[in-house]
Amino acid sequence: MVEQKNDFTEWYLQTVQKAELMSYSPVRGSMIFRPDGFEIWEHIQEEFNKYLRSEDIRNAYFPMLIPKHFFMKEADHIEGFAPELPWVTEVGDEKLEEPLALRPTSETMIGAAFSDWINSYRDLPYEINQWANVFRWEKKTLPFLRTSEFLWQEGHTAHIDEEDARRRTLNVLDEYTRLCEEFLAIPVYKGEKTPSERFAGAVDTYSIEAMMQDGKAVQAGTSHYMGTKFAEAFDITYLNKENKHVHAHTTSWGVSTRLIGSLIMTHGDEHGLVLPPTVAAHQVVLMPVGPWKKNPAIMEKLDEIYAELKKLGIRVRLDDSDNSPGYKFNEWELKGACVRIECGPRDLENGHAMLKVRDLADKEKVAFDDLIATIQTHLAEMTPRLLATAKARNKENEHFHINTLDELKAHIETCKKEDKPTGFVLIGWDGTDETEAKIKEETGFTTRNIPFDVPMEKATDLITGEPAKHTLWIARAY
Amino acid sequence: MVEQKNDFTEWYLQTVQKAELMSYSPVRGSMIFRPDGFEIWEHIQEEFNKYLRSEDIRNAYFPMLIPKHFFMKEADHIEGFAPELPWVTEVGDEKLEEPLALRPTSETMIGAAFSDWINSYRDLPYEINQWANVFRWEKKTLPFLRTSEFLWQEGHTAHIDEEDARRRTLNVLDEYTRLCEEFLAIPVYKGEKTPSERFAGAVDTYSIEAMMQDGKAVQAGTSHYMGTKFAEAFDITYLNKENKHVHAHTTSWGVSTRLIGSLIMTHGDEHGLVLPPTVAAHQVVLMPVGPWKKNPAIMEKLDEIYAELKKLGIRVRLDDSDNSPGYKFNEWELKGACVRIECGPRDLENGHAMLKVRDLADKEKVAFDDLIATIQTHLAEMTPRLLATAKARNKENEHFHINTLDELKAHIETCKKEDKPTGFVLIGWDGTDETEAKIKEETGFTTRNIPFDVPMEKATDLITGEPAKHTLWIARAY
Repeated sequence: MVEQKNDFTEWYLQTVQKAELMSYSPVRGSMIFRPDGFEIWEHIQEEFNKYLRSEDIRNAYFPMLIPKHFFMKEADHIEGFAPELPWVTEVGDEKLEEPLALRPTSETMIGAAFSDWINSYRDLPYEINQWANVFRWEKKTLPFLRTSEFLWQEGHTAHIDEEDARRRTLNVLDEYTRLCEEFLAIPVYKGEKTPSERFAGAVDTYSIEAMMQDGKAVQAGTSHYMGTKFAEAFDITYLNKENKHVHAHTTSWGVSTRLIGSLIMTHGDEHGLVLPPTVAAHQVVLMPVGPWKKNPAIMEKLDEIYAELKKLGIRVRLDDSDNSPGYKFNEWELKGACVRIECGPRDLENGHAMLKVRDLADKEKVAFDDLIATIQTHLAEMTPRLLATAKARNKENEHFHINTLDELKAHIETCKKEDKPTGFVLIGWDGTDETEAKIKEETGFTTRNIPFDVPMEKATDLITGEPAKHTLWIARAY
Repeated sequence: MVEQKNDFTEWYLQTVQKAELMSYSPVRGSMIFRPDGFEIWEHIQEEFNKYLRSEDIRNAYFPMLIPKHFFMKEADHIEGFAPELPWVTEVGDEKLEEPLALRPTSETMIGAAFSDWINSYRDLPYEINQWANVFRWEKKTLPFLRTSEFLWQEGHTAHIDEEDARRRTLNVLDEYTRLCEEFLAIPVYKGEKTPSERFAGAVDTYSIEAMMQDGKAVQAGTSHYMGTKFAEAFDITYLNKENKHVHAHTTSWGVSTRLIGSLIMTHGDEHGLVLPPTVAAHQVVLMPVGPWKKNPAIMEKLDEIYAELKKLGIRVRLDDSDNSPGYKFNEWELKGACVRIECGPRDLENGHAMLKVRDLADKEKVAFDDLIATIQTHLAEMTPRLLATAKARNKENEHFHINTLDELKAHIETCKKEDKPTGFVLIGWDGTDETEAKIKEETGFTTRNIPFDVPMEKATDLITGEPAKHTLWIARAY
C-alpha cells in the first residue's frame, strides 16, 4: 500500500477500498457504501436525530423527482445547480411531457409544501428534516467527498421573522460543530462563507471547515439563511398577529456522507483507518494467539469476554480465523478496530490479556478481572484524545503571518520543499469577488470562511494591499 | 368526511390527508411522507433492524442509477420491469452515452457487487440489506399502496446451496409475519405465489397477504428464492471445499411503505386513524377541559403527568390550544392518538382524570395515583387487541365453499346486494396461467397465494372442474 506521507490522496483511495468502506460502482462518480462504511453513517444519523428530537424538528420524506418548472422559480437556485442536474426524460419507452430533475437539494419541493401547510403565525416555526439521497454530477469525484449521488440530511425551516430564522441557522451550526468535534473528533472552523461561495439562493451561508492531515480543507457542513427569497418564489406566507399576509423567513442546512471522508482523512494513519469508538463498526476485536487450538480454555475465556462486552452494547468481534496473528493485526488495524485484545496460552496461565489501543503506541498487560473496565475506559478516552491530537496538528498548520500574494507563493514553495502541508492561511480581504478569483487562479487556494472568532485581525487585502474589510481563512480544498 | 362504510377508498384518501400522514406532490403518482406518516416508517425500520442485527445481516447502500446494459443481463428481470422504468438520459444539457434507470429494485447492482466480493465458500452466506427509495411508474396510484416512488428495505443474500438459500427465504417470511402481526397488528396469510405472480427473475416467490376491512387484499411483503439465475447472469461464483468454482444461490426480499397503507386500511374507523402504540406518533394526548385557564393547577398537574410519561419514553402530546374539547377530541381521534387523558376542575378536585382508549367504547375515571400504570397497561394491551379484532373480522370474510365460477359470481352478487366485502375465497386450481387469467377477466379476483397451512383442500379447479393441483386464496386486491 502507498504510504500516507508520500501520496495522501492515493493513500486515502486505497484505504477506503481495502478497509471495505466502499466499492466503485459501474455508474461514473457513484459508489457503493459497504457495511463498514454505511455503519458510520448510521451512527451519525442516530446522533443527529437526538438533536432533532430535542428541538422538536421532525423527519419527513419528499419526492426525489423535481419538475423542471419548479426549479425555475428561484433564479439564483437554478443557475447554481443547472449544470449538475441529471434529468429523467423517459419512462418505459415514452417521452415525458416535462423533464424531471433528480434532486440536488429540496428547497423547491419543500418550499411548495410549506406554502400549503403554513397558514398562520401559530404554525411557525415550521421545522422539518429529511434524510435522503441527492445528486450532483461532479466532474472530478472522490469517494465519500465528492460523488454523483450522496446521502445527507437536509433541514428546512420557516420562521416568523429574520431573528428567529437566524437563530435556527446558527443553532444548527453549533450542533454541527458539536457533532464533528465531540462525536467525530474532527475539529472545525466555524464562520461565514463569502458571497461567491454562498448556497445558490441564500442570503447568508455559514460553514464549518475541517482541516485534513495534508492541510487541505473539507467543507463539512453548511447552514443557510434564505431571507424571504424562497418564500417569495414559492409563496410561503402566513397570517400574522395583525391579520396581514406576510412572507416567512426560511433556512436550510445539511451535513452529508462527506463526513465519512473527513473522518478518515483526519484520523487515518499508515496502518489504515483510525476511528473514534462513537462510530467504529468494530470497537473491540478479540483474538486468540499462539497454539490456541490445542488449548480450548483460551477460546472459552474469549467467548466469555465477548459475551460480557456484547451485553454492554459494545460492538465486539471475535477473530478465530486460521490467519496468522500478524495478518490479523494488520487487518484489524486497517479496519480501524479501536481496541485489540490478544490472549495466548501464557496470558491465560498468568490471568491476563494483552490490550492494544489503535492510536496508542504500546501494548499493555491487563488482568482479566480489570479487562472490561479497562476497555470501557479506553473507549471513553479515545474520542476526546483523537480530537486533541487533531487540534494540535491543526495548530501547526495554521498560518497567520502571510500578508501578500508573494508571501503566500513563498509559503507554498517552502511547504513543497520541506514536504509540509500548506494548511489554512489567514488573510485580509477587501470583500470583492475579483481578489478571491485572483487568489484561486494564482495559487489554487479558495476562501473557506470568515471566522466567527477571528484569531487575529488582518489589516490589508492579500492581493491589492488596500484596507481589508474582512479577515478570512483560505486553503486548498477537497 | 365521507363515511368508511359508504366508500372505503374515498374514506382512505381523505383520512390519510386529513390526518396529515401525506400530501400529494406535483409529480404524478408520487407523494410526500409528512412527519406523522414518516414516523410510522421509522418505527418499522427500527423494529426490522433488530431482526437484521440478530441475524448479522448488515445494512449497506448501493447507487440508485442502474446502467441499461446491467439491466439487460437477466432476461426475465428486464422484461418484467421495462414498462415502469424511468430513465435518466441527460445531465445539464448533455446527453448521456448510456441511459441510466432509476432502480425499481437492486438485484442487478447488488449482483454485480456480490460477484466482486464473494470468492470462497468461507464468504458465504453473504447477507446484505438496504433501506432505499425505489421507482415503479404505476398507471393507477394510491397513497402509500402504489406510488411511483416508494421507500422499502431490500435484503439480498448469497448462499452455498439451495437449502441454505431457501432457509433464509422462509426465515425472512416468518419475520415479516411476526412484524405484521405482533408489531403492526395486521394478520397475514403466508404462502407461495403462483408462477404468473412471481418476481421477475425468481424461481419461487413467497408472500404475506393482508386483508383490508373492505375485504380486498394487500400484498404486504415478498421473499424470493432466485436459484442460480442471478448468479449466472452476474457471475456470482465461489470456490467450494472441493476447490471448484460454482454458482451461489441467491435470495431477495422486501417490505415497503405499503405497510403504512395496510395499517390504516386494517384498523381505521369512522373517526379516522386507529394505530397500534408500537408505531403511533401520538401514544398519549393530554388535554385540559372545562374552565382550565382560570385554574392553573390543572395545567400544573398535566405538566407533571407529561414529564413522567416523557421520562418513560412514551410519545406524549399536551394539547393546550384554545380549541374546544369537541374539536380536540375529533382531531386526536382522526390522528389516531392511542390514549386520551382529560382533566378539568372537577376531575382535579376529585383526584382523577378521564381516560379514553382509541379503540374502546367507554371513558374511564382513573385516580392520579394509578394513571401512569393504567396508561402503560393500555398501551401494552392495545396492539394484541387490535390484532385479535382484525383476525376475527378476517374470519368472517374468508370463504371456503365456492367451487365454481358461477358460485363465485353469485357470491359477488350477494356481497354487492348485502353491502358486504367479497373477502378471500379459497379455491381449487389446476395450476395453469389460463384459469388464473380467466378468473381475473370474469371477476377481477386475482390469485393471492397458495397457503402454507391449507385450511381445507379443494378438489377441483374453479374454472375447468378438472382435478385441482393446488388450493389457493383469491381476492380483489390493491
